[in-house]
Amino acid sequence: MTTISTTPRRPGAAALLTIALTAACAGQAAEAPPTVLVIHGGAGTITRTEMTAEREAAYRAKLTEALETGHQILAAGGAGLDAVEATIRVMEDSPLFNAGKGAVFTAAGRNELDASIMDGASGKAGAVAGVTTVKNPISAARAVMEKTWHVLLAADGADAFAAQAGLETVEPGYFFTQRRWDALQKRRTGDGLEPLPAPAAAARTSPAGPAYGTVGALALDAKGQLAAGTSTGGMTNKRYGRVGDSPIIGAGTWADQRCATSGTGEGEYFIRLGVARDVCARLAYLELSLAEAADQVIHGALSKAGGTGGVIALDAGGNVAMRFNTEGMYRGWIGTDGVAHVSIYGDEE
Amino acid sequence: MTTISTTPRRPGAAALLTIALTAACAGQAAEAPPTVLVIHGGAGTITRTEMTAEREAAYRAKLTEALETGHQILAAGGAGLDAVEATIRVMEDSPLFNAGKGAVFTAAGRNELDASIMDGASGKAGAVAGVTTVKNPISAARAVMEKTWHVLLAADGADAFAAQAGLETVEPGYFFTQRRWDALQKRRTGDGLEPLPAPAAAARTSPAGPAYGTVGALALDAKGQLAAGTSTGGMTNKRYGRVGDSPIIGAGTWADQRCATSGTGEGEYFIRLGVARDVCARLAYLELSLAEAADQVIHGALSKAGGTGGVIALDAGGNVAMRFNTEGMYRGWIGTDGVAHVSIYGDEE
Repeated sequence: MTTISTTPRRPGAAALLTIALTAACAGQAAEAPPTVLVIHGGAGTITRTEMTAEREAAYRAKLTEALETGHQILAAGGAGLDAVEATIRVMEDSPLFNAGKGAVFTAAGRNELDASIMDGASGKAGAVAGVTTVKNPISAARAVMEKTWHVLLAADGADAFAAQAGLETVEPGYFFTQRRWDALQKRRTGDGLEPLPAPAAAARTSPAGPAYGTVGALALDAKGQLAAGTSTGGMTNKRYGRVGDSPIIGAGTWADQRCATSGTGEGEYFIRLGVARDVCARLAYLELSLAEAADQVIHGALSKAGGTGGVIALDAGGNVAMRFNTEGMYRGWIGTDGVAHVSIYGDEE
Repeated sequence: MTTISTTPRRPGAAALLTIALTAACAGQAAEAPPTVLVIHGGAGTITRTEMTAEREAAYRAKLTEALETGHQILAAGGAGLDAVEATIRVMEDSPLFNAGKGAVFTAAGRNELDASIMDGASGKAGAVAGVTTVKNPISAARAVMEKTWHVLLAADGADAFAAQAGLETVEPGYFFTQRRWDALQKRRTGDGLEPLPAPAAAARTSPAGPAYGTVGALALDAKGQLAAGTSTGGMTNKRYGRVGDSPIIGAGTWADQRCATSGTGEGEYFIRLGVARDVCARLAYLELSLAEAADQVIHGALSKAGGTGGVIALDAGGNVAMRFNTEGMYRGWIGTDGVAHVSIYGDEE
């Protein structure tokens, strides 16, 4: 039985929703191992009053497409790593999310993208930080894992490596979206700064709040192996060179043999608390359930520290937890039956 | 009673050395809280046969100077963060260690420095990765923590921030040392590559093995607060843009209210295993002693994964653990009595 647990809008009333997948899987051969894919597309102030029907439909459709893309790989016996990468690429290629095409702008009016991936079976990991010309940072992260001795490459070196590794590159202008540019100008106006394109002053400015739209995916494949990945454009108005939690193994992404996680939110808190690893550490060391572990980290440690965001988690038994202390989180999961379950608001399952 | 535990050369024979500091502290007023500073200067193939008497004396003298510098701050009631920063600056300014002045060269013949610092009381942290013009990267890490909303700044952005923050900058040539340059040429020759200064081919090359000389410091101050810091030049022949564990909170550095750690060794393994945080997580969640926690991570997880290196650890009770699975680790500690204890080889205390 797979347990799916999520968080209602009010953390104090955290209800555990248990969904027996037994019925849904009744048509499967008894020996077929369960496969599960879980995704998020960012946590934040996501409410019905700020959403149009058209926009909501676009998010639900893209989340469903991402889930089904990864599911096809898992259903065919493919590796969890392949499913994670393919799923995240769908979201990176969409302007809806703050990753790849839809990345937010830095204080200097640039796009600097971060991503990481981890293979739970081997414990290997790869990541890139601050790339500017890689179309799909998650694939660059995987190339770092598979083609170098390193885990994390940053900035120009990471761009150069990705190009040498044969990954698709784009002009920085590819990442321009009017929505994200307007968000930066609005932020700058609020800070009393001049409009861009003049290079931004490097004076201390307040952050723009949580970045909505970091994407992540977790997979449990037919071999019982877990994988995790995360990709982001970071935080609007971030200082040039700022690296958030998404490319940091243990902060934004984690996978081991028992547990996989991906986070989204105010990255600095996720680094300081080591959120992604901490969920799995509590599972392993405190022998908590996945839901309890995620709950302690998000509604306990993160909320106590004053940070906001969410995490998706998946264990080797196929249990799913989706926890956030914000109004909403774009999220979803798909099991062996191939039915995509997509949610946005805090009062949804 | 403070427990000091270290690792003999053969991990299997790990002996626990317990030293009662009661006698040494007999002259202190009973109400004086204990202060402790612990440092490392890198782990690796450090053996008596490869060491000259002159060189060994130089290391012991510099480690002692670093310990005494931090101790003076702690003895005067200063903050652990101040002690950690000042102690690491002494080692960064010495060409003996792979940090600051003595940093190793990248595959491209550059010096790219990483550092991080964490305040156990507040949980705040700061880090820089890939800086090339900052004389003391540990101070830049602290400035990131105290003067920005971010935790980690990388590459050009980090250099620019450090300069704007008023930190001392140097020309990249400041970091040139013949010893480290020769190490790179030797490595390149072994890989069948042309000698530099021609820009290095970005073809996959094997790493140079553990970086010897990453430095770290941990402090317990008179208020009972812990702090941790780590600084490094990374790995000889590292790929341009490679970021190791030292600037990664949770991998190379960790401090919370109960436990502080700093690591040194093959950084990629330290990231994949989240070594620094894992020691403190096992202390907190498994209720192990500091020595047991460090032992499990270094002689358990790290050795099992095939990685080499070491970690220093300090808890809020003033207990010290220094664990490594290499032949030696430059290391030392100093307690309330101000007597510096310095060790290098695996068969020393």
